[in-house]
Amino acid sequence: MDINKKSALQEKDGVSKPETTSSFSAEIIKKNRTKRNSTEEFIAKIIAGNITFLSKAITLVESTNSKHQEKANKILEACLPFANKSIRIGITGVPGVGKSTFIEAFGKHLTAQGKKVAVLAVDPSSSVNKGSILGDKTRMEQLVTDKNAFIRPSPSGTSLGGVAQKTRESIILCEAAGFDTILIETVGVGQSETLVHSMVDFFLLLKLAGAGDELQGIKRGIIEMADAIVINKADGENEKNAKIAKVEFNRALHLYPLKESNWQPKVLTASALHHFNIDKIDAMINRYFNLTKENNYFNQKRNEQNKFWLLSTIEQQLKDNFYQNPKIKIALQEEILNLKNKKTTPFNAAKRLLNL
Amino acid sequence: MDINKKSALQEKDGVSKPETTSSFSAEIIKKNRTKRNSTEEFIAKIIAGNITFLSKAITLVESTNSKHQEKANKILEACLPFANKSIRIGITGVPGVGKSTFIEAFGKHLTAQGKKVAVLAVDPSSSVNKGSILGDKTRMEQLVTDKNAFIRPSPSGTSLGGVAQKTRESIILCEAAGFDTILIETVGVGQSETLVHSMVDFFLLLKLAGAGDELQGIKRGIIEMADAIVINKADGENEKNAKIAKVEFNRALHLYPLKESNWQPKVLTASALHHFNIDKIDAMINRYFNLTKENNYFNQKRNEQNKFWLLSTIEQQLKDNFYQNPKIKIALQEEILNLKNKKTTPFNAAKRLLNL
Repeated sequence: MDINKKSALQEKDGVSKPETTSSFSAEIIKKNRTKRNSTEEFIAKIIAGNITFLSKAITLVESTNSKHQEKANKILEACLPFANKSIRIGITGVPGVGKSTFIEAFGKHLTAQGKKVAVLAVDPSSSVNKGSILGDKTRMEQLVTDKNAFIRPSPSGTSLGGVAQKTRESIILCEAAGFDTILIETVGVGQSETLVHSMVDFFLLLKLAGAGDELQGIKRGIIEMADAIVINKADGENEKNAKIAKVEFNRALHLYPLKESNWQPKVLTASALHHFNIDKIDAMINRYFNLTKENNYFNQKRNEQNKFWLLSTIEQQLKDNFYQNPKIKIALQEEILNLKNKKTTPFNAAKRLLNL
Repeated sequence: MDINKKSALQEKDGVSKPETTSSFSAEIIKKNRTKRNSTEEFIAKIIAGNITFLSKAITLVESTNSKHQEKANKILEACLPFANKSIRIGITGVPGVGKSTFIEAFGKHLTAQGKKVAVLAVDPSSSVNKGSILGDKTRMEQLVTDKNAFIRPSPSGTSLGGVAQKTRESIILCEAAGFDTILIETVGVGQSETLVHSMVDFFLLLKLAGAGDELQGIKRGIIEMADAIVINKADGENEKNAKIAKVEFNRALHLYPLKESNWQPKVLTASALHHFNIDKIDAMINRYFNLTKENNYFNQKRNEQNKFWLLSTIEQQLKDNFYQNPKIKIALQEEILNLKNKKTTPFNAAKRLLNL
């Protein structure tokens, strides 16, 4: 198509043609589009805090293309010495608890102090079709336009572990780009919290007053993982209930043994909508980091988390390699049929498959 | 040693020598002790309901010796067509809830009807040193002497999955030996309930009235898995609290969506000590089996369980093979050090290890 031909963009006489409509500019754009940025360029730009390159690198991390992954791995290893300088905070809670409002209020509170905040997500419901928690950025209107904030929706993927891996790698890139506070959002209804818990330093659980655990769909294990429980929407007529809930959660938390971090989990009420107690939450989190950096739990936990991710990546890959083998695929179906017909036990069938 | 020489056993004149003290008998005993029973003998005896051979076969299943395992596998596959005719009931609850007393009362109730009851256990705390739930058989005095009951303590093992696998194989042997009701006990404090849930048709949770979930240490997920909750020790001054707890649990259970089995989980009070409501529990369980055998959920669930065990056995073995490789062992330690020194990411380290 000849872009110099009369088109809607050129109907008005006396208006100079926009630069991009000239064939010359079009050529340059085309060239730039196809030209791959070099790995070195990526690394330099990310470390310099360039948000465009940070975004592009995360796209490489999220890509399923093996060439992209190879490049992403090189960038990641080069960024590593510049990462690890931030604090990582996981935020969970069921839909409706006010996660987006809380993150916006908390994020603005941090950027007002000159901090740089990156918001990532691990959303198991996220996929190309379903959309993701942070996909609807309009929910964080103020934070989205804040130059000291970087918001990235959850990567999509077929396995939760895969989604979480991508988010974990994105953390490294954000940290290398100078973000000192990483907020990782997840929905507190599945196994995603366990994975998020294994990539953050501090785990914050948002709750509502008045709703039983059954209604909130939060699994008990999540309460055990929490370093703090924030009872959100503690405003108006909810305030009294929030205070009662605070007492109850405090009592419940005291039944658990003291954490390895030596930190006694805290319960606070807050209203993210009215910015009530956001400062207290920030102060509380700071106390946690002072404590755990002093007693070295901070480093110790990060080392353990790295080991966890090393082992879980290996194990996922071992499974993938096995089940994707065409011979195994056929034999597996046969053994499942044998099981159905009571011709073998699961353990003997497994043995035969592994001997292939 | 010449056993015909004067010994304490032969001091009294006029008393004929016990048969076993003759050198001839001693030889026979010695021979029998060293002679291995053939696989065919095992199979025939188990199917004939011989308890001694059932016990011996379970010992083979539990052995870590590869020859024993090979023999166990042959016996298992041969027993399979004779198994699968029983009902399998999982019973869980924290220590102190009265599991042993309940199993004794329930077991006696079943054997009084002419049923044959096998009691097995999956106890994660069990090991050679620590002993196991059913190790203390004195807790089931009546059932232990009942010729229609077979009680076997939890196998010991280093991995919970391994312990559970052995119990699952023992189920097949018990069923082939004619036991029509298999009770599988586990402590409701860890991951063992999930594994027990995956090997039984019906899952019963024992609770106490008056103690909150926190105090009872039961994870919420277990309540979701339960087909029935029995509030035990509903006697004396506890009776009123038990009734209140029943209402509360009924309310909580109704919050969950209807199970795939189309069965609405039931809540009953009982006193195992006073045999109160044991008959009602039996009747309720019978209703469950009538329903699920009619709507084919029973078979469907067993097929799914077989598939679950097939896949989890494969995956455990893949991990074992990988990590036990001497080259991997060394390289893994190196990569863990690299992680510590921030020289690599968990994902790149995993990739290098897998490429070995």
